[in-house]
Amino acid sequence: MRLRNLKNKDELVSNCTYLINNSLKNKWDEEFQNKNPIHLEIGMGKGDFIYNMALKYPNINFIGIEKYTGVVARAIKKHPQKLNNLRIMNIDAFNLEEYFGKEIEVIYLNFSDPWPKKRQAKRRLTSEVFLNIYDKIFKDTAIIKMKTDNIGLFASSIVSLSNYGYKFVDVNLDLASSDIPNVLTEYESKFREENIKINYFLAKK
Amino acid sequence: MRLRNLKNKDELVSNCTYLINNSLKNKWDEEFQNKNPIHLEIGMGKGDFIYNMALKYPNINFIGIEKYTGVVARAIKKHPQKLNNLRIMNIDAFNLEEYFGKEIEVIYLNFSDPWPKKRQAKRRLTSEVFLNIYDKIFKDTAIIKMKTDNIGLFASSIVSLSNYGYKFVDVNLDLASSDIPNVLTEYESKFREENIKINYFLAKK
Repeated sequence: MRLRNLKNKDELVSNCTYLINNSLKNKWDEEFQNKNPIHLEIGMGKGDFIYNMALKYPNINFIGIEKYTGVVARAIKKHPQKLNNLRIMNIDAFNLEEYFGKEIEVIYLNFSDPWPKKRQAKRRLTSEVFLNIYDKIFKDTAIIKMKTDNIGLFASSIVSLSNYGYKFVDVNLDLASSDIPNVLTEYESKFREENIKINYFLAKK
Repeated sequence: MRLRNLKNKDELVSNCTYLINNSLKNKWDEEFQNKNPIHLEIGMGKGDFIYNMALKYPNINFIGIEKYTGVVARAIKKHPQKLNNLRIMNIDAFNLEEYFGKEIEVIYLNFSDPWPKKRQAKRRLTSEVFLNIYDKIFKDTAIIKMKTDNIGLFASSIVSLSNYGYKFVDVNLDLASSDIPNVLTEYESKFREENIKINYFLAKK
């Protein structure tokens, strides 16, 4: 996601009361002060999805991660209110294992970078490289929910996950027309206006 | 597929030299007079796909089945020439086991009836009902190649096959723009003109 740089980016980030800087590996229950399930969004962007999910499902704890500090700052600016069941982190998915033990029940991948070229395939968040990393932070059952407008990323994700042992519980090639419960991301709201179809799956291992 | 009835339908069918009426279960090698792999298309329609596949791949034996006699007659009218490596049958996929032993290497499902209502799900050619039947006629490895414009059928097929133990080797949500080798069906030619995207997968078990 490319954005104009916010002037008060560092201030927004350092003053945020729900941004976690240190590792809380195996201590997330303490942080949330309960044993509710923890769901993780990788690449939360401006945070619309994770923030509204947290509002909608108070009995689930949500963590959004985003690697770009400028984007994290935008999310904080857009959603200044701290929610009990929401935390965010300015970290890269490559390093998830440093920050999480086997604590996560669901991973959301919303409009992830498609890395369309073959030589970039390993960088896709559904490549074997990342599925390996996710294995280390999933609690028991692994559940990945993906939404994307990109048909190349969607197709390669189905191949990658099915060969890694995931089964597809639900697949939809036009999420907006389905009755699947859904909370919109920033991208998704825009795509809906433009009538671009959103592909969705829920996969389980 | 709805078609006007051909007046000489019965004549076309009874005079066809490459339509098989009786069961050749476990005798297909004899029929083709070689041990080449046998590929089966279920619901061949007017036969464009299976006929052109047979022309393109002389070292593979092709069998097309179609349950509607009127449609079989159209296929014969359109493709009167007998090819050594092509046979057709006027049978229903429910009865495949009566006509085939463990002799099939690849099954093609092209633009199959989507049976969109939930209560009709079992009738889809990728439902568990049919996957069970296919198990009985696949030689060793099961390979299913599907093409469809119908996103509901495509999505439900991914769910059904992945839960039945199939892995996806290749998935594409816009076959025409891909470099996947392809032979067009009647439907597909029309869809291309109308710029309708074709979904494709190759799944293996």
